[in-house]
Amino acid sequence: MKKILNEKLEYSGRRFDVIHKEIEDENGRFYERDIVKTNSASLILPITKANEIIFIKQFRESIGEESLELPAGIIEDGESPEDAAKRELEEETGLISNQVFYLTEFYTSAGYTNEKVYVFVAKDFEEGNMHLDSDEHINEISKIPLEKCLELIENNYFKHANIYVAILVYCLKVMNQDKKDNKSK
Amino acid sequence: MKKILNEKLEYSGRRFDVIHKEIEDENGRFYERDIVKTNSASLILPITKANEIIFIKQFRESIGEESLELPAGIIEDGESPEDAAKRELEEETGLISNQVFYLTEFYTSAGYTNEKVYVFVAKDFEEGNMHLDSDEHINEISKIPLEKCLELIENNYFKHANIYVAILVYCLKVMNQDKKDNKSK
Repeated sequence: MKKILNEKLEYSGRRFDVIHKEIEDENGRFYERDIVKTNSASLILPITKANEIIFIKQFRESIGEESLELPAGIIEDGESPEDAAKRELEEETGLISNQVFYLTEFYTSAGYTNEKVYVFVAKDFEEGNMHLDSDEHINEISKIPLEKCLELIENNYFKHANIYVAILVYCLKVMNQDKKDNKSK
Repeated sequence: MKKILNEKLEYSGRRFDVIHKEIEDENGRFYERDIVKTNSASLILPITKANEIIFIKQFRESIGEESLELPAGIIEDGESPEDAAKRELEEETGLISNQVFYLTEFYTSAGYTNEKVYVFVAKDFEEGNMHLDSDEHINEISKIPLEKCLELIENNYFKHANIYVAILVYCLKVMNQDKKDNKSK
């Protein structure tokens, strides 16, 4: 049996905690791990009637540059992933979606963090209220046709794992649904 | 102009540092960010002649469970992403690849970390030496046919963003290459 010999909260911030663990494995070997513990997040793939994906541009301190991203945000305590997706979509783009559905979920980097992201597709929009958090700075909303997005992926244009996952899993599921629909005709 | 008012190293570990930044934006608004600063990593999509993907199973402290993953690891100081990919492949699977090529790259979670992953495809293997780091615990190597992987993705079986990205970007690029090849015939 693996044993946790020691576990210490090394840092506690607004966005995440850092926990240091000392572990002894089944074979008596000692090792240590630093873990970033954080709430899960919801990511939204907003798709217009014309089959365009809606992106936002924002400056990211972590990478020191402006970044083309999908709307996303941390799930608040007591909130469902789907409600968080709807809330973040409206906050970041000003759009209310009448058709939100679950696409997939994933860990972002299990080597050191428990961060999990739930992905939702949003379609059929009406105008809502854009209301950014006081420390959010979204510069620009843009639309890129889905077909063009696939070309951009092929050219390694996008910078974030979550964009690749959302668009490509969506395409895979839609393609396979189309195949099934054709078979059943 | 945005101004960094304060920047403090809150934690320094083996795997990452945590930096707290206090920032004043163009409009005089104050905000704070915690950033996990870490080395980049290389991820390998190993594909056999029979078009199977090679996975490893390992226990992840971060999520408290055993995890089916692609071989991956941190790029060491002075090492190229491709060399790190080759090294990690041999260390974690015991395989040496005679054909490694760049696929894509991405940030894992730019909301709070600069972590970047470079993705390589590896084919044409010969036997090397498996030599895990002293604190690595890889339990099992398994092969899953690529076609089956796509089914598993459709059923949300895989848990990690990097698996989705590697397999789906590979499929997109291969499919489009096939299309181009057919056109040129």
